[in-house]
Parts: sequence; structure tokens; C-alpha cells
Amino acid sequence: MDKLSPLTDEECHALLRSRGLGRLGFTSGALPVVLPVNYLDRGDHLLLRTGVGPILEAAWAGQVACLEIDASEPVGHEGWSVLVTGRLHEIADPAQLKAVRALPLLAWARPDARHYVRLSIELLSGRRLGHDRTWPPAGTGVP
Amino acid sequence: MDKLSPLTDEECHALLRSRGLGRLGFTSGALPVVLPVNYLDRGDHLLLRTGVGPILEAAWAGQVACLEIDASEPVGHEGWSVLVTGRLHEIADPAQLKAVRALPLLAWARPDARHYVRLSIELLSGRRLGHDRTWPPAGTGVP
Repeated sequence: MDKLSPLTDEECHALLRSRGLGRLGFTSGALPVVLPVNYLDRGDHLLLRTGVGPILEAAWAGQVACLEIDASEPVGHEGWSVLVTGRLHEIADPAQLKAVRALPLLAWARPDARHYVRLSIELLSGRRLGHDRTWPPAGTGVP
Repeated sequence: MDKLSPLTDEECHALLRSRGLGRLGFTSGALPVVLPVNYLDRGDHLLLRTGVGPILEAAWAGQVACLEIDASEPVGHEGWSVLVTGRLHEIADPAQLKAVRALPLLAWARPDARHYVRLSIELLSGRRLGHDRTWPPAGTGVP
């Protein structure tokens, strides 16, 4: 029987660290938008890199936004999803900028984009979907 | 050199029809949410199936929402994303319900969920990312 189970914060962070591509949900021109973004999990925030555009404008506005990651295994109907909710801010401090520029992070749409944005991790939730089997599967690196 | 190019409506629909899993962006409890959903492209709307929960509540509220699909090929830094924006409505008409129940659509989280929701396609946009190569790659079925 299919069931939906909540994930712990530790499981959510392990899944966030195991991935680098998520979908950012925010508002642009009063409309909901979802865009693919690369990210780094920095513990209390996710780091994004972006060019001049709607994500940067949302950061300038200090918007509340969310980032989602998921995986599905259609045949067995198993999967999981993790949702981070927080506030977007552009990193403007020169010392912080110098530090993040050294990190291995490329923007999804424009790899060499020059702006860095933090999504604070205020809310973290995750759920796994699956049958009554052991989860996570062996070898996924998820504790 | 990387570049970002807009997709035509026809290309967007072809990509929507080539997939069945997207990420729905909407609002729940005044917060942005993104959740994985299975969908069917029905031309002027996307059809979703869901249980009692935030997606159904958003449909009851007639919320403006969006659905995003994307693909990435990290090595060559190529990809595309498509975004549909419209309004959510639950299907309540018995004849319509009977028709959609016959369609091959399972809910992501609860495959046998009993409610059906339409996302009208009011805005459709897509972009592809890639080098100066022919796109789409041969054999993807995208015209």
C-alpha cells in the first residue's frame, strides 16, 4: 500500500546535499513563477547564483520564496520531495562575495552570472512516498 | 557561447506532451509552495489529479498557479524549461468527471486520489539554453 511519510530535518539536508538542481518558487509581476536553479546547501541557507532578472528582483524585494527538490521512480511508484521556505536576499558584502565566488556553483540559465542570492532556510519539510520497504535504498548516501 | 532562446507555443506543447511530471507552484497558507505533480496536456488546460490537501484547497480558491517542466544536460550545459501559468479549478461536473476518470493519470503523492483539477493555460513560455548547435536533438520527438 502506498504511503506518505514525513522526513526529518537531517534527511532533508542529506537529500539537499545529494542534489544541486532544484526548482525555485517565487513571484514575478504578481504571478507565481517556478524556475530551475542550481544551489548549494550552506546549512542555514541555500546559495543561488543568478543574472539580472526575476530571481534577482525577488531578492531585492526580500521575497519569501521556496525551493523544491524531488525524485521519482515511476515503476515502483516511489519517490520523495523536499521543500525549503525562506527569504531571498542578494549578497552584497564584498568579503562574502569573494568567498562565495570561490564556490563550485554555476547558474542554471547563465553559468557565469555575477549575482549571488541566499535563500534562508526558515521552514524545511520533506516527505517520502513508497511501499513498505526499507528507505532510503542502499547506496544512495542518504543516512 | 551559452545562449538563452525563447520557445514557440508549439515547442512548449510538444515538450509538455513529451513529459508527465511537472512542478506546481502555488500558495498555501500565504506561503509559496512547489510540489511535484503528474499532469496531462489537454490543449487549453493541464489536468491534475489530487487528494484532499493544499492543491485541492488552491483549486477551491480559484488560485492563479503555475506548472514548470525542465530538462538539463549538465555536461554540455544544455537544457530547456517551460512554464504554464493559469487558474486552478476543481472539476465537479459529473459528466466531465466520468470522462477524466478514464484517462491514464495517477496523482504523484496518492495515485488513486479522487479529485481532478484543471490548470488553465493562460500564459505559456519556454526557453532553451545551449550552445550554437541544432536543437532539439534528433530523436526526442520534439518537432
